Amino acid sequence: MTDSSPLPRVFSSDNTAGASPEIAEAVARAATGAALPYGTDDLTARVRTRLGEIFEREVDVLIVSSGTAANGLSLATLTPPWGSVLCHRDSHINNDECGAPEFFTAGAKLVPLGGADAKIDPAQLRAAVRHRSGDVHSVVPSVVSVTQATETGAVLTPDELGVLSDITREGGLRLHMDGARFAGAVSALDASPADLTWRAGVDLLSFGATKNGTMTADAIVVFDRSLTPELSFRTKRGGQITAKSRFHAAQLDAYLADGLWLRNAERANAMAARLQDGLAEIPGIELLGETAANIVFCRLPQQVTEKLLADGFVFYHDRWEPGVVRLVTSFATTRDDVDDLLRAATDAASTGGA
Amino acid sequence: MTDSSPLPRVFSSDNTAGASPEIAEAVARAATGAALPYGTDDLTARVRTRLGEIFEREVDVLIVSSGTAANGLSLATLTPPWGSVLCHRDSHINNDECGAPEFFTAGAKLVPLGGADAKIDPAQLRAAVRHRSGDVHSVVPSVVSVTQATETGAVLTPDELGVLSDITREGGLRLHMDGARFAGAVSALDASPADLTWRAGVDLLSFGATKNGTMTADAIVVFDRSLTPELSFRTKRGGQITAKSRFHAAQLDAYLADGLWLRNAERANAMAARLQDGLAEIPGIELLGETAANIVFCRLPQQVTEKLLADGFVFYHDRWEPGVVRLVTSFATTRDDVDDLLRAATDAASTGGA
Amino acid sequence: MTDSSPLPRVFSSDNTAGASPEIAEAVARAATGAALPYGTDDLTARVRTRLGEIFEREVDVLIVSSGTAANGLSLATLTPPWGSVLCHRDSHINNDECGAPEFFTAGAKLVPLGGADAKIDPAQLRAAVRHRSGDVHSVVPSVVSVTQATETGAVLTPDELGVLSDITREGGLRLHMDGARFAGAVSALDASPADLTWRAGVDLLSFGATKNGTMTADAIVVFDRSLTPELSFRTKRGGQITAKSRFHAAQLDAYLADGLWLRNAERANAMAARLQDGLAEIPGIELLGETAANIVFCRLPQQVTEKLLADGFVFYHDRWEPGVVRLVTSFATTRDDVDDLLRAATDAASTGGA
Amino acid sequence: MTDSSPLPRVFSSDNTAGASPEIAEAVARAATGAALPYGTDDLTARVRTRLGEIFEREVDVLIVSSGTAANGLSLATLTPPWGSVLCHRDSHINNDECGAPEFFTAGAKLVPLGGADAKIDPAQLRAAVRHRSGDVHSVVPSVVSVTQATETGAVLTPDELGVLSDITREGGLRLHMDGARFAGAVSALDASPADLTWRAGVDLLSFGATKNGTMTADAIVVFDRSLTPELSFRTKRGGQITAKSRFHAAQLDAYLADGLWLRNAERANAMAARLQDGLAEIPGIELLGETAANIVFCRLPQQVTEKLLADGFVFYHDRWEPGVVRLVTSFATTRDDVDDLLRAATDAASTGGA
Repeated sequence: MTDSSPLPRVFSSDNTAGASPEIAEAVARAATGAALPYGTDDLTARVRTRLGEIFEREVDVLIVSSGTAANGLSLATLTPPWGSVLCHRDSHINNDECGAPEFFTAGAKLVPLGGADAKIDPAQLRAAVRHRSGDVHSVVPSVVSVTQATETGAVLTPDELGVLSDITREGGLRLHMDGARFAGAVSALDASPADLTWRAGVDLLSFGATKNGTMTADAIVVFDRSLTPELSFRTKRGGQITAKSRFHAAQLDAYLADGLWLRNAERANAMAARLQDGLAEIPGIELLGETAANIVFCRLPQQVTEKLLADGFVFYHDRWEPGVVRLVTSFATTRDDVDDLLRAATDAASTGGA
Repeated sequence: MTDSSPLPRVFSSDNTAGASPEIAEAVARAATGAALPYGTDDLTARVRTRLGEIFEREVDVLIVSSGTAANGLSLATLTPPWGSVLCHRDSHINNDECGAPEFFTAGAKLVPLGGADAKIDPAQLRAAVRHRSGDVHSVVPSVVSVTQATETGAVLTPDELGVLSDITREGGLRLHMDGARFAGAVSALDASPADLTWRAGVDLLSFGATKNGTMTADAIVVFDRSLTPELSFRTKRGGQITAKSRFHAAQLDAYLADGLWLRNAERANAMAARLQDGLAEIPGIELLGETAANIVFCRLPQQVTEKLLADGFVFYHDRWEPGVVRLVTSFATTRDDVDDLLRAATDAASTGGA
Repeated sequence: MTDSSPLPRVFSSDNTAGASPEIAEAVARAATGAALPYGTDDLTARVRTRLGEIFEREVDVLIVSSGTAANGLSLATLTPPWGSVLCHRDSHINNDECGAPEFFTAGAKLVPLGGADAKIDPAQLRAAVRHRSGDVHSVVPSVVSVTQATETGAVLTPDELGVLSDITREGGLRLHMDGARFAGAVSALDASPADLTWRAGVDLLSFGATKNGTMTADAIVVFDRSLTPELSFRTKRGGQITAKSRFHAAQLDAYLADGLWLRNAERANAMAARLQDGLAEIPGIELLGETAANIVFCRLPQQVTEKLLADGFVFYHDRWEPGVVRLVTSFATTRDDVDDLLRAATDAASTGGA
Repeated sequence: MTDSSPLPRVFSSDNTAGASPEIAEAVARAATGAALPYGTDDLTARVRTRLGEIFEREVDVLIVSSGTAANGLSLATLTPPWGSVLCHRDSHINNDECGAPEFFTAGAKLVPLGGADAKIDPAQLRAAVRHRSGDVHSVVPSVVSVTQATETGAVLTPDELGVLSDITREGGLRLHMDGARFAGAVSALDASPADLTWRAGVDLLSFGATKNGTMTADAIVVFDRSLTPELSFRTKRGGQITAKSRFHAAQLDAYLADGLWLRNAERANAMAARLQDGLAEIPGIELLGETAANIVFCRLPQQVTEKLLADGFVFYHDRWEPGVVRLVTSFATTRDDVDDLLRAATDAASTGGA
């Protein structure tokens, strides 16, 4: 139960946080009265309008119940079954969705590429884009999928995105963005959502709301609107058009109103920065990779990891390599949460140990 | 917007109703604090416990965001791709899910059967169950899917269900129930949920909560628990394991607490009965088929249909055959809604016309 | 072994016949020397040229190893997964391919329609073509598949085909022809292959060579050549591009040379006509439906069926309804085969019985 | 045309060779008389018997028209759609089948592993077998696929195979062998077919006949016979059960009779050995990797490659890395073919150049 067994010191993922109060209120407000179903309700229309304002152009929107569905449906619309999806080897679509992209695409192939900070290396992308394209014995490179912010918390700058986008377009491929931490990237880069997406050639965006304050609602933002009919059929067929769509739409409507989505991201980013700054001060702790959003990777001495676990902090460790720890903040992380962790780590680090 | 443009006289579907206040409150309550993600939270566990009590045995539960997903995932777990799903020709899975069963099953074939009141005719089922089973040139009859209550609002009695179940089992097939209006059937039959499902051989049940008071949460109830691992992988891969699962679980938890799910169904059924009784009194109106749950099919004179539409009543008409109208009530339908409609119909009927 | 246990009186299907001697010689001739693989060989090119001559226009050709593959790959290229294939309820694709169309299309839906002599009824087609097209909750009518000659041995005349084709085009659907007995239809109708296909709007034709004299080679003839790249990828991915493609091509090359394909079909048709004429003379035997190609349906008295079986004749009976028998001739059927059967039937019929 | 434009100096692949005369004769012999269709003929039964003798145990056999189909159908039977196939990154299934494994498996994931000579590295396999098995967010390691002989012409010794097999079994996975050059491996290792397959834990074998002397017939050999029903349905549904199955069976029957399959492989291997020995003598040429079967990888000076191409030799070059050449022999390669190539290479090498 959420109220009886609180998890107060959770740094394992942003998906352990709850929802913003504004969103909870909007959902409650939507509970009364009749509304049209299956995405034809007024709230869904308003979400589309709001996203159009945010992205400075007309967009279409498909509201879904998970980022995995947003990614799978988007990729299925951008590649034929005999195509390949070029992505980073550490990407969520490649590792953490139980093959959902392969399911939704009817068997397209994910081609894992390398690159620092979970960003696709441009040289590797350039080679992969051309790889046996048109050879009937090979899958056809069809879509590039980038993650913003990346799985390690780094952000793709407009320039970095531009490089990947140019390679994509020159090869005649489509561009998908998994915006799992899109709000965090917008906030960190202080860039316009338009510059980070369609102006850089993104065809479809998995908007990534769930981790940043909504409950169960995520969205696909459609920039190439010629894709909307196909995407709509796929979404229905994938069981992702909820009957009482207003309840998903209400979450996104409140999330987008008055900049809540960016305020939440700013908070999460600020807490990650505070964490980084604090960890950098502690002897024996090594920060790993660049971080601009809400994920911090670091190497901790064994006794520090053990102390933090003993104190009830929850986080992933020893999953990537021994000693490596991932700490994730969210819009619900407080200064006290961060400072408590830093204090415990400082204590443990000074005690020495193995 | 739901508040600015009310749809006060909606009889088109139960999915235009909102959510029960208890459910809205439970969702708001779940918004604060941390909770484990992806179905590992305490509320999800409590939903499983509650369903175990309701069904008088241990069950597994997969929470999903639509009945279409519940049906598709269930069927995929019960039939191989080269199998067939025997169902009524008027069933939702056959007509209204854009081929979701075919998608989730990787291409199984739905075999449409006839029968009055959208119930599968036992003689047709008996023939279909045996049809070329084992012949490598034919799909293999693998699963029977029944709907409770049916698409026309009729209910399968325990005896009727038993007949279909016996044929299913004798043929070595699995049994799926699309419980789109399951609460309504339980309420109408005054039967135990156990008798209407696993005691009658049902392997997997699409629980059908959305139409009856929840917002975006539906569930697959697993009676043959050996299916749970496969079903879990399919659910994840289908993008249906929501990160912040507590928000779906909270809806079902409140829905099942204190008998809310049955109270809601009783209300919807009672309003349909009131509607039927009233319509039966009106000269020129013909009730079609038996109805025990919340759907009423009738034949209306043209001028009655036109008058109701002119008065702002919303419902499907002329979709099945000319003159045939479907009226659906929900837990949110009021006596006034019904009486207003009856009054308008009475007026129009007495006016005469074509 | 084919030589030790001959099946001399086989009327069960045309697929029990062997291959034309010219084809066997061509295959043997192709066995020596090197040739390019995977459809890039000279014989494959020549087959394409020959089909271009036969169809009086440039065509593309994909050579495959079964009619089932030809049908499945063609349909997959003509419908999206959320589309429907409108076909006759007795069609091979609907009944006898173990769901291959569903497999190759990634889950499209076959919509079975009625009509005499296994020809789609135009009125039913007209309704089906429009059925909820564009409604996101329904599969989208996408392709019509007709069989030539039909599963009962009837042929679609150019006029009949024109009617179905017009309905197809007006609805914006694509047209596929399962030419399982295409040569038989051309021969029976004395019509041009072009008139029976692309001039009547056929996009893709399953050519249907195997039943009429080749060994293992069948072909998809592509009239809408914009489909060729997609079809090629699907064919490779479906395991249907054979490495030593010359051996399939050699079969079709000889089959098409000097009119062998039509001579074979004429023989099969002539033998079916002889059979029909003879059966019509026998008291108590009822011919069922029109037949122009090599399939004869009839109703036999029980003692006639038993006598024929006892005499070693092989054929399907009691599969459609009690008393109904299907007799199929092939290019290898001889006058003696037919006359022997007629004699045995005459004897048994005159004996009387139940 | 094969006879008018001979390709006498082809070292590009073994699939440019024709068929053994014994096989051509067997096919011609099968052309007359009636035979049962769809794999129920006597020749198919005899192929099964012969394979049972060769493998020293009862086996089931599915005859198909390509190695790609054999691999795809086998893998689909060994992994669920949410499973992964562990294979070498250079394997044919991973690179050269246009995603056929993904198609037949309905979207399983191929996990590419490294290792010298296109053999899977045991340490990498050990890690991959355990990787997140059972975690619902990840695909489940389900089957290991090894190639025999490998894509570079190396052979897996019984010991090497045993190591991979032990890891596979300990992890609870299934074992598939792509026997593209299986006869070559048997011949090179002088090992029993049984020891190289089921005694080492192989569940399903793609037999690999096409490259070694048959025309269009390949086979799946089933050691775990509980898989046969599923495999049969998949094979039919995949369009791979040819109507006139005797013509595929006749090829395999002759191929297996009197040891033809091994004689053909011995010839191909001997010619590759002769090629290697000759190349090793030529200054400036570097042999790459071990070779026991019919594939030779080497690094040639630029002027040697150019001279060979100018002289009409056909082979792949500069596809892997600059200067790297692949030469493949077959059962049809002659001593003169090899000696001509060696002579030309010697001449070019002595001329000097860049």
